[in-house]
Amino acid sequence: MAETQSAPAETNGADGTNGVNREHDLGFGRKHILINAFDMSTVGHLSPGHWKNPKDKSATKRKLEYWIELARLLERGGVNALFLADTYGGYDTYEGKLDDCIRRAAQWPITDPTIPISAMAAITKNLTFAITASTSFEPPYLLAKRFSTLDHLTDGRVGWNIVTSWKKAAFKAIDLDSPIEHDERYRQADEYLRVLYKLWEGSWSDFALNPDPANDSYINPSLIRTINHKGKYFSLAAPHIVDPSPQRTPFLFQAGTSTAGSVFAATHAEGIFVSGHSASVLRPKVDNIRRLAGEQGRDPRSIKVFATATPILGRTDEEAREKHQELLQYASVIGGLVLFSGWTGIDISKISLDQEITEADYTEAHKVRSVLAAFTTISKEIPKWTPRVVAQHASIGGLGPVPVGSPQTVADELERWVREGDVDGFNIGYVTTPGSFEDVVDLLIPELRRRGVYPELPGEEDEATTVREKVYGKGQRGLRDDHAGSRYKYDVYQEEGPNVLEGEVKAK
Amino acid sequence: MAETQSAPAETNGADGTNGVNREHDLGFGRKHILINAFDMSTVGHLSPGHWKNPKDKSATKRKLEYWIELARLLERGGVNALFLADTYGGYDTYEGKLDDCIRRAAQWPITDPTIPISAMAAITKNLTFAITASTSFEPPYLLAKRFSTLDHLTDGRVGWNIVTSWKKAAFKAIDLDSPIEHDERYRQADEYLRVLYKLWEGSWSDFALNPDPANDSYINPSLIRTINHKGKYFSLAAPHIVDPSPQRTPFLFQAGTSTAGSVFAATHAEGIFVSGHSASVLRPKVDNIRRLAGEQGRDPRSIKVFATATPILGRTDEEAREKHQELLQYASVIGGLVLFSGWTGIDISKISLDQEITEADYTEAHKVRSVLAAFTTISKEIPKWTPRVVAQHASIGGLGPVPVGSPQTVADELERWVREGDVDGFNIGYVTTPGSFEDVVDLLIPELRRRGVYPELPGEEDEATTVREKVYGKGQRGLRDDHAGSRYKYDVYQEEGPNVLEGEVKAK
Repeated sequence: MAETQSAPAETNGADGTNGVNREHDLGFGRKHILINAFDMSTVGHLSPGHWKNPKDKSATKRKLEYWIELARLLERGGVNALFLADTYGGYDTYEGKLDDCIRRAAQWPITDPTIPISAMAAITKNLTFAITASTSFEPPYLLAKRFSTLDHLTDGRVGWNIVTSWKKAAFKAIDLDSPIEHDERYRQADEYLRVLYKLWEGSWSDFALNPDPANDSYINPSLIRTINHKGKYFSLAAPHIVDPSPQRTPFLFQAGTSTAGSVFAATHAEGIFVSGHSASVLRPKVDNIRRLAGEQGRDPRSIKVFATATPILGRTDEEAREKHQELLQYASVIGGLVLFSGWTGIDISKISLDQEITEADYTEAHKVRSVLAAFTTISKEIPKWTPRVVAQHASIGGLGPVPVGSPQTVADELERWVREGDVDGFNIGYVTTPGSFEDVVDLLIPELRRRGVYPELPGEEDEATTVREKVYGKGQRGLRDDHAGSRYKYDVYQEEGPNVLEGEVKAK
Repeated sequence: MAETQSAPAETNGADGTNGVNREHDLGFGRKHILINAFDMSTVGHLSPGHWKNPKDKSATKRKLEYWIELARLLERGGVNALFLADTYGGYDTYEGKLDDCIRRAAQWPITDPTIPISAMAAITKNLTFAITASTSFEPPYLLAKRFSTLDHLTDGRVGWNIVTSWKKAAFKAIDLDSPIEHDERYRQADEYLRVLYKLWEGSWSDFALNPDPANDSYINPSLIRTINHKGKYFSLAAPHIVDPSPQRTPFLFQAGTSTAGSVFAATHAEGIFVSGHSASVLRPKVDNIRRLAGEQGRDPRSIKVFATATPILGRTDEEAREKHQELLQYASVIGGLVLFSGWTGIDISKISLDQEITEADYTEAHKVRSVLAAFTTISKEIPKWTPRVVAQHASIGGLGPVPVGSPQTVADELERWVREGDVDGFNIGYVTTPGSFEDVVDLLIPELRRRGVYPELPGEEDEATTVREKVYGKGQRGLRDDHAGSRYKYDVYQEEGPNVLEGEVKAK
């Protein structure tokens, strides 16, 4: 545990949590920092190569025991959500092939993140789950059924991390000749979401399910609307096959800060997941999304922004630095470059490992430099950027920040990000698992609680809350009224005639 | 428990199980009857209306507790598998609309059967799971990833019940104008399966995953083959994204006794699921599938046939008959007719409830009569068939047999089916759940064990076995050599050149 601690100077327990210390003003009236554990059903997620560390269990994710132990740990710590990334293909930008992605286990192989959820839900009460799924590869009706089932069986503890998918490899695996063009992909995803709202929000009245044994009637069919959607990309004619789950629409996460991505996020996302080495670089993107949301009549503060961060925690700064040095020896240089190349679209294999990266010798150097500039803001001491130096960064924590230090040091850094980046919380990546998450639970969260910026564990007697209630407060199980999906709520649409909802986008 | 019991006249414990009593010769060298519990993530499965029975918990399937308790029960009884049906739309043949399907909860609403599996797997060791999924609605790559994940996380305890889907309502929900024509559907499904074999069997060598920390190498990419499939219905270019799971290909179940369906089953199925009121009516269909399998070089006995049956068990015949009478009062007449109409394609709403069904007053009467003929073989005492009488049958146990009696009576009847129908086991449906399954575990299975025709529970120290090993014996984790999928095994295909497998069906 931390050797020193600062007691809150002033507490205000009116909301049943620790009070807020004035020294820990998080800005914009925020009371708490939201902490998600960021994992992926793969061997090397943001930190490739650490499977070689005897302390790491990332290569045991094919067994249920891994997920059950992780869920127990996160529940014990009061972690907000387990955020599970997913992808449908490997990274093949580096050398233009998959070989090193496969060899270094750089997000390879990958299992389906949906499968272990019920085992984790069965042994937890407060932990929630954010599961990644793409809008590009399956009919909305199937996804609607799956997420409604997840939301039922977890008592409303499910979020969906919406991805539109961009990897060429994934499209080749799915039987589509080439990735859909970027902006088009978001237009398609927008329609996909509207079809889902119609199914989740618009198909069943809250009163449809009304068991009436005397009349042999379990459901009143006149309170179920058939969704007749004929759009540009999708059409269907069916009622939703699952009765309303606790949240109806799962809590919606989304990543994407491109122009089209930001409009989509500002329209649909309740939680936004961003990644960047510097809070100041991130800030304008966050401002832009909040502004766009505001223009659509949404409360800009209702969008909760989560930044990736991979802290390396010790009881003291010295211990953390030693841990960092120990971890570095397991990092995969090539694995880091495979991910870097995949994320940036730059095949960095063309520059030899110890050659300095300059504009002169690399046609795409302007892209490299902008990425490096971001790195540099946190690593000003590095005089010469080479692929090997890039790899040292990219193989621990990906492209996100890696604060190294005591709980106080890391908490200070996270608070700085909250204020400077206007973020609401973090997706905390691991270097070793569950080791990094144990440090979050045993070192970081207690320090945040001491500062009054993290909620206490709910009591045994407290009712479990849905994902949305954890973020917006007790009672807010469904979409907020200012969210685009609320336009599709059953009662809102009733005047448009019986059993028909028209598509948003007219068929060509 | 049973009041009388017959000890086996002769035992032969060489295989570690109870010996086989000569009085209980099951034919074809069979030692055991395979018993699956047959359920569906819906309120009324084969017995609509029983949600009204205070003893029934079928309306609690949206909660994980239902599945966890059911799994514990089936594990305690040594049930072979939990077989989970699924469908993608409601039954709309009756009156040409969904209203009564919805009102009577006749397989409506329906959640995704995949979701609760890991919660059940976490608390069981020997129970296996057969999950229904369609070949018509999602890319094979996604299904391959999901089932490989299921097989990993359950330690090889997963089977797939392959359906090709026929409901118009499902196709309308999925965004396809109309169901694919029947025979075409099976041709498409055949190619779908071959793509899956390539991914599951042909993509990864057993030796590809070979952690070598000294060389920063987790997997040897030269032992992973990219599947390049260009077929009539599907194409993809990708390696399988999941390393080989315990069974690689999940144990393959299939239903379908039409001509095209039988060829498909004889080619791909390891377990076949059949439904019929009479063993003698079933027998020629079973003979035909075994014959077709033999023509393809498969051991006809390696196909395990499961018949639906919904026994109503009491400690005595009298108690069982009383239970049957009690259950009948909860059956939904209209719900039964909704299912009957859906399964047979006959809108029986056109005949009034108490009118006798004759050829004269019903254009599709020849179809009705053939279904009735099957009913009649077990209900000869019924002089006059009306929709109400049909409903009485269809609302308890669907179109399968409903043996009513003591464990001895029901076991006799099941043995008769095994011998006369040449079936290997049963998918046992419920009238109330978990009540009907408790009777199977506490009354029927002990009686079958007394007869030496059901395996004893494995001991604490016994290793868990995969689905395929439970059926074919210890060691047979993968597809048998005589199965079509074995042609796609990694080593078999190696001579065809590096990293390429050609499609079976040439692109048009």
